[in-house]
Amino acid sequence: MRNIQVSELDRRAVEDQDVEIVERKGLGHPDSLCDGIAEEVSRALSRLYLDRVGKVLHYNTDETQLAAGSASPAFGGGELLEPVYVLIVGRATKKYQGRTLPVERTALEAARSYLNETVPELDVGTDVVLDARLGEGSGDLQEVFGEDDAQVPEANDTSFGVGHAPLTETERIVLEAERELNGSYAADHPELGPDVKIMGKREGDAIDITVAAAMVDAYVADMDDYLASVDRVEAFVSDLATSYTDREVHVQVNTADDAEEGSIYLTTSGTSAEQGDDGSVGRGNRANGLITPNRPMSMEATSGKNPVNHIGKIYNLLSTDIAEAVVEEVDGIRDLQVRLLSQIGRPIDRPHVADAQVVTAEGVAVSDVEAEMIEIVDERLANVTDVTRRVIEGELSTF
Amino acid sequence: MRNIQVSELDRRAVEDQDVEIVERKGLGHPDSLCDGIAEEVSRALSRLYLDRVGKVLHYNTDETQLAAGSASPAFGGGELLEPVYVLIVGRATKKYQGRTLPVERTALEAARSYLNETVPELDVGTDVVLDARLGEGSGDLQEVFGEDDAQVPEANDTSFGVGHAPLTETERIVLEAERELNGSYAADHPELGPDVKIMGKREGDAIDITVAAAMVDAYVADMDDYLASVDRVEAFVSDLATSYTDREVHVQVNTADDAEEGSIYLTTSGTSAEQGDDGSVGRGNRANGLITPNRPMSMEATSGKNPVNHIGKIYNLLSTDIAEAVVEEVDGIRDLQVRLLSQIGRPIDRPHVADAQVVTAEGVAVSDVEAEMIEIVDERLANVTDVTRRVIEGELSTF
Amino acid sequence: MRNIQVSELDRRAVEDQDVEIVERKGLGHPDSLCDGIAEEVSRALSRLYLDRVGKVLHYNTDETQLAAGSASPAFGGGELLEPVYVLIVGRATKKYQGRTLPVERTALEAARSYLNETVPELDVGTDVVLDARLGEGSGDLQEVFGEDDAQVPEANDTSFGVGHAPLTETERIVLEAERELNGSYAADHPELGPDVKIMGKREGDAIDITVAAAMVDAYVADMDDYLASVDRVEAFVSDLATSYTDREVHVQVNTADDAEEGSIYLTTSGTSAEQGDDGSVGRGNRANGLITPNRPMSMEATSGKNPVNHIGKIYNLLSTDIAEAVVEEVDGIRDLQVRLLSQIGRPIDRPHVADAQVVTAEGVAVSDVEAEMIEIVDERLANVTDVTRRVIEGELSTF
Amino acid sequence: MRNIQVSELDRRAVEDQDVEIVERKGLGHPDSLCDGIAEEVSRALSRLYLDRVGKVLHYNTDETQLAAGSASPAFGGGELLEPVYVLIVGRATKKYQGRTLPVERTALEAARSYLNETVPELDVGTDVVLDARLGEGSGDLQEVFGEDDAQVPEANDTSFGVGHAPLTETERIVLEAERELNGSYAADHPELGPDVKIMGKREGDAIDITVAAAMVDAYVADMDDYLASVDRVEAFVSDLATSYTDREVHVQVNTADDAEEGSIYLTTSGTSAEQGDDGSVGRGNRANGLITPNRPMSMEATSGKNPVNHIGKIYNLLSTDIAEAVVEEVDGIRDLQVRLLSQIGRPIDRPHVADAQVVTAEGVAVSDVEAEMIEIVDERLANVTDVTRRVIEGELSTF
Repeated sequence: MRNIQVSELDRRAVEDQDVEIVERKGLGHPDSLCDGIAEEVSRALSRLYLDRVGKVLHYNTDETQLAAGSASPAFGGGELLEPVYVLIVGRATKKYQGRTLPVERTALEAARSYLNETVPELDVGTDVVLDARLGEGSGDLQEVFGEDDAQVPEANDTSFGVGHAPLTETERIVLEAERELNGSYAADHPELGPDVKIMGKREGDAIDITVAAAMVDAYVADMDDYLASVDRVEAFVSDLATSYTDREVHVQVNTADDAEEGSIYLTTSGTSAEQGDDGSVGRGNRANGLITPNRPMSMEATSGKNPVNHIGKIYNLLSTDIAEAVVEEVDGIRDLQVRLLSQIGRPIDRPHVADAQVVTAEGVAVSDVEAEMIEIVDERLANVTDVTRRVIEGELSTF
Repeated sequence: MRNIQVSELDRRAVEDQDVEIVERKGLGHPDSLCDGIAEEVSRALSRLYLDRVGKVLHYNTDETQLAAGSASPAFGGGELLEPVYVLIVGRATKKYQGRTLPVERTALEAARSYLNETVPELDVGTDVVLDARLGEGSGDLQEVFGEDDAQVPEANDTSFGVGHAPLTETERIVLEAERELNGSYAADHPELGPDVKIMGKREGDAIDITVAAAMVDAYVADMDDYLASVDRVEAFVSDLATSYTDREVHVQVNTADDAEEGSIYLTTSGTSAEQGDDGSVGRGNRANGLITPNRPMSMEATSGKNPVNHIGKIYNLLSTDIAEAVVEEVDGIRDLQVRLLSQIGRPIDRPHVADAQVVTAEGVAVSDVEAEMIEIVDERLANVTDVTRRVIEGELSTF
Repeated sequence: MRNIQVSELDRRAVEDQDVEIVERKGLGHPDSLCDGIAEEVSRALSRLYLDRVGKVLHYNTDETQLAAGSASPAFGGGELLEPVYVLIVGRATKKYQGRTLPVERTALEAARSYLNETVPELDVGTDVVLDARLGEGSGDLQEVFGEDDAQVPEANDTSFGVGHAPLTETERIVLEAERELNGSYAADHPELGPDVKIMGKREGDAIDITVAAAMVDAYVADMDDYLASVDRVEAFVSDLATSYTDREVHVQVNTADDAEEGSIYLTTSGTSAEQGDDGSVGRGNRANGLITPNRPMSMEATSGKNPVNHIGKIYNLLSTDIAEAVVEEVDGIRDLQVRLLSQIGRPIDRPHVADAQVVTAEGVAVSDVEAEMIEIVDERLANVTDVTRRVIEGELSTF
Repeated sequence: MRNIQVSELDRRAVEDQDVEIVERKGLGHPDSLCDGIAEEVSRALSRLYLDRVGKVLHYNTDETQLAAGSASPAFGGGELLEPVYVLIVGRATKKYQGRTLPVERTALEAARSYLNETVPELDVGTDVVLDARLGEGSGDLQEVFGEDDAQVPEANDTSFGVGHAPLTETERIVLEAERELNGSYAADHPELGPDVKIMGKREGDAIDITVAAAMVDAYVADMDDYLASVDRVEAFVSDLATSYTDREVHVQVNTADDAEEGSIYLTTSGTSAEQGDDGSVGRGNRANGLITPNRPMSMEATSGKNPVNHIGKIYNLLSTDIAEAVVEEVDGIRDLQVRLLSQIGRPIDRPHVADAQVVTAEGVAVSDVEAEMIEIVDERLANVTDVTRRVIEGELSTF
């Protein structure tokens, strides 16, 4: 039997706390770019190994360093001056049964294609210098991780994952605002770059949403055009917010601007990586896409880790997945926090402890939902290898 | 007047919670090495600027990437095979009033000296390739930050810092065990390398301390010697633990070892950076030296940031400092959490909100301690520039 | 008056010597790739400066290092495994009158475009990691070199250039064979890669031409196809040779092949840079496109140097140009060697010595051609700035 | 029988020509630093392989790229600003019979130790960033080269080596002046840095020696001291020259100086690598230590190549060695040029042609010396593997 504990969460639901802080670094933020590259490289390597040898071999690519470049943005179109430098770091099995596998080329290709798609205004090879240092790793780790029959691996580390559900209103606004801005909105408004950073702060029932949005100079004719672009973003986010909350929402965009002095958030590429902002993996969003100081968070970087056997990655994604599944299927839950703790040597579908702490809705007792919750947790743990599959297929986001 | 709020903390003291998890990555862990290098480079640049121009100029060196090397450890002394690669990334003002300042040389010198001291078995220049990419940063950030008269700067970002006190027993054990192992113990036992990682888990009154301790092969004659070394560490930590708690403590060292198969944690340099473990800044310990998923944590990397004006760094250090000061001076506090939230454009000694949440001891009301607490918080905020000074003088640790 | 000396050359014409050795590294050879990149970057920077500030500012980009990658070629199409790494090194003026110029981006763009054109099978950004380290240079060299009115600069170094004409039959065959193979032949035969290396050896009247020709696997179906491709190259070069000489010519292609053992010159990209052959600037062809140990050669790397003021570059190109002009316009010259030696501080159109040594045809005395020769040398020296212009416009090749 | 041909050299002895140009880049010149590092790394790898596996395995390290740094020299002692960057490039066998060999560490250690010794004012690790990119090379070249029984390998390339003897007076002055300046003189005069570049030009009987000597600021108190230091070098070289010639010698040191404008050749480290002068292998001195446009030269870089099987390296060193031996043992030789040409697949002690061309002294016929010459050439060819041994033991210099 799995060790699954359900108990009452020892605090108010985050939704009911007095002060709440939420942040999301958008796709084009230097830290998110590194997360995205690391994860994309990881997926490409998984696929390479599956294609070539039928199983995922040892690798770990959870480090990517971005050193910022410089640019001279100008209304109507400026130019990059110094390229952004991106170094992919990690290790990967390069030889298997006498065959040499193109791991470095695969990593570069994945990273380049991801960057081209995510920051189209940056021309990789000219505006971005992309390099890789992939070692072989130590002999001990060289063992092969099977995947064809989706065997459950043993935990090779003591690690910890934590997930939450449901999102609070503020969390949802922050998350969705970034997704929509980088999705439908950007499709219609090329002047909005992918480096959108959103900070949400709720005090009581007043929600402040602060957006830092990098504008792309080629699509901004002059200062009036810029100010109108900023206003459009503000209106869009205000609108979007009202569909998630009845609370009072106040949206501010590019508050650090000083239009009089010409100090505005104008870029050539749409990311602050052109303006001295460095980045690396694991310093931004957690596995659920948010930074939430009101909730326990794992420090573990999820992006770029091997999805077959990295227990920290799997447990962070799985605990989030479990929390969401429980909240979706079980009524009467106001806040849920799921923690998974591994034990070295145990199969990862049998954590040392799986701990589901819950704030129930008024009139609902923990005992009312306990059995149903345990069942869901148990089933998801049993199918832990699904997480691996979904990561490789790109169904699960890590940041 | 400063906006200082004191309220009851909306949960039990961490000491009283059922499950507690605490981790500390020791000085020689690849992530900590990066934190240490980044902070040491930052301090060296601050001192350079103060020496040469009387004030700290703009810089930010909060990124350092370590790409692991490889080694073939052997009882009695093995050897490094591939060097560890360390890239210092950031930006710094290189020219001021017509003078060119040796920022890259200063950064390399600080990093090298820190590495030589922290991992003496690694010979920087042969075992470690140390490189730096320090840009100039964008024009807008080029402004100069005064320091001669210790003016209070304005916040240039919305940022958040959080601090706690007192440490729980488990936290104290984890923190002190690593410090002692890397201090007095290592001084007497050269076989213990600086890469000591400690995980503490408390369930109810049972504390498990798991230590991963890299042994240095030159000082380990054979397997018996190794096993004896592991036992010595275990005994030392067990002893130490009893001075911090009356709870039952169970210590395990190098649990992943398989002595039969010769798979043990033996290294040539004393750090897993020789064995495929990469590292970067801000992925390990928080500003109080610990990773504490039971407590709110800031994702902000503290190490390497400019201590004069980086609001995230200052508020993380200051909130910790405030929490410790309050607990030391005010009786009846069982758990205290201090949060500081900046507002763009306001002097940083006047945060948007300074929020002290407290779990009082039995028989103590929040109102009993509120006035005293506010006074201390207020006084510390007034002296915010002390944080800058103490960081530059190396009195405050950031990881 | 210019110091122009005409004298009899103190040896037989190279055409009449017993043994002659000539070599040309084709466009796709790693050393030539570096030469080509360096020169292309130089031209791009010259144009950048002319476009933006009306004159060529200080720069020097005569160093490019190529570190080879690896590949696993296969009939019908193999793949790159490890990328080729190319580092552009040099210095360039980055700021001028308050404007920042995109020198690094310009350099990367020029190099990438050159590589894409020269080795189309290599995808820069995936198969090639392209990086640049361009410093600012020392203050003393920071002065600006005028070009608008094409002023003649002063020599800033003691340097030496040497040129020859006419080419011997062997030289012509080697030079033209590579040009045709990389030109019309490759256009029709995509299986021939750009890395063609040709060695010519003449002993008396027997000329041996040895060709090493990298075949591109995607266009070679099998071993028979490969052998046929090799034969085609041999036939082509044999044919071509007969148009330049009546001597007996023996052509061999890919002599190191061992078809039985499957050890053949098959590549994925068409260059040995995918097979462990590193490259750098100035180690291959001299300014006239050849390596000719029978003739005096300058060690000076011509590619990548600033064409406005680098005396070594200008004199190597100019001496070759003069030799060719003299031979074209003056009858009765069997071999001509022109040397230009600079003197620090003198205008470069007035070399310390311009020395034309000649082997005249039978029945022609030096005195018969001296006056005409001096006139041509004098006129070309007077128009020395033409060299600069022609280099920038790409009319003069440097390797 | 070996194919050894002796004939009359088809020109006057260089000593008798009207104009002669000779150059030597001293040990501290950026190009020479790269030559020295490459060769030192090569020797260290040879020794590593011999120590560990009893034979020299495949490697080639004939590429090293130096990207200059910057400094602000000042009387009494200035400082480095930006570090010099040195990248060692090549390939080496990293695994042999299951053992992993520390080739990168060995390369870094050799390079660092060489730099520390050659440019003591540069602190490697702080003033110099030293990095290495050593690939594995392609499979075909992976074969092992025996050395225990000193078997004669077969030529794997068509290559060419050329050597000369005796040195002319001008050559001897240039060579010895640099050696003495960097030897006994520097030992007594720490103000003289190792970057000494000497150009010799002889017109008829007038010899001009131009020395560019980097002075080290820490040992130069002021301008008077500097000028005195320059004068001392001039006097020393003038003195030295008279012991090699009766011709009129005119020595100039640091002719580009402009003391009035403070533009002098003052450095902090003693090398122009701190002042924007980049360097790479094979662009400076030929195997005999000189650049001699009056004589045929091989373009082949000798430094860093594998001394067991690289035919270009071996033949360049051997031809020089043969020429010197012949001139020492046979009377009546005024100028001698030895050329060795390999043929793919033949043992290297049996070159395709060994060609000794001679200018005899007055009254001596070629036939008088032919037999003796052939004997010496034959004997040296028979002992070709001595070259390998002497290179590894550091007895033969390559630049």
